[in-house]
Amino acid sequence: MEQKINLDDRFSRFRDTWSPKIVGTLNDYDLKVAKVEGEFVWHAHDETDELLLVHKGRLVIQLEGRDDIVLEPGELFVVPRGVRHCPVADSPTEILLLEPAGTLNTGDATAGGTIGESI
Amino acid sequence: MEQKINLDDRFSRFRDTWSPKIVGTLNDYDLKVAKVEGEFVWHAHDETDELLLVHKGRLVIQLEGRDDIVLEPGELFVVPRGVRHCPVADSPTEILLLEPAGTLNTGDATAGGTIGESI
Repeated sequence: MEQKINLDDRFSRFRDTWSPKIVGTLNDYDLKVAKVEGEFVWHAHDETDELLLVHKGRLVIQLEGRDDIVLEPGELFVVPRGVRHCPVADSPTEILLLEPAGTLNTGDATAGGTIGESI
Repeated sequence: MEQKINLDDRFSRFRDTWSPKIVGTLNDYDLKVAKVEGEFVWHAHDETDELLLVHKGRLVIQLEGRDDIVLEPGELFVVPRGVRHCPVADSPTEILLLEPAGTLNTGDATAGGTIGESI
């Protein structure tokens, strides 16, 4: 039976960074949480937009050919499909992601990515 | 060009309750915000799940045939498709919603619903 999702509780269940965890589903979309710190890899998702919401901390989304987006708690951004981007966080940051199930966190980058495990 | 969405800023742009406003899109989904207070109408969405996240306040989601879900800030719930539900808030509450574009807030209820205007 479906239960509510408390974000603080879900973030307390893991420590690793840049490894999204699935906490729920919305139709064929996965709702994920991730801890991030430092710089990720440049990548794009050619088939889908990606929603990023900051829960705690501060996330800078570097975007190819345009100004960075800086997100603080209570702020979100939808990275349009096909737009190359590279998230970076100067301090431990917690984010919520929403994207179609099966979306690799590394998009088109060649490094091994993950679609996330459920927690 | 896409911009970040600051939830407090978006909630400051309107006062009416039970009237979701579109603040962004994710593929063919609309991201909406709504102010709620009091009780809404019982309804179901037969074609889609519906994600509800509380930004401020406290939302009780009454569900047909099962226990209520009580959401506080930082908590969310996905109402499964087809499940009759009726949200209620005892005090002014701000929520974030995600559902496919064109979803009526009243679902299958006969009262006039809205798909939301953009703010």
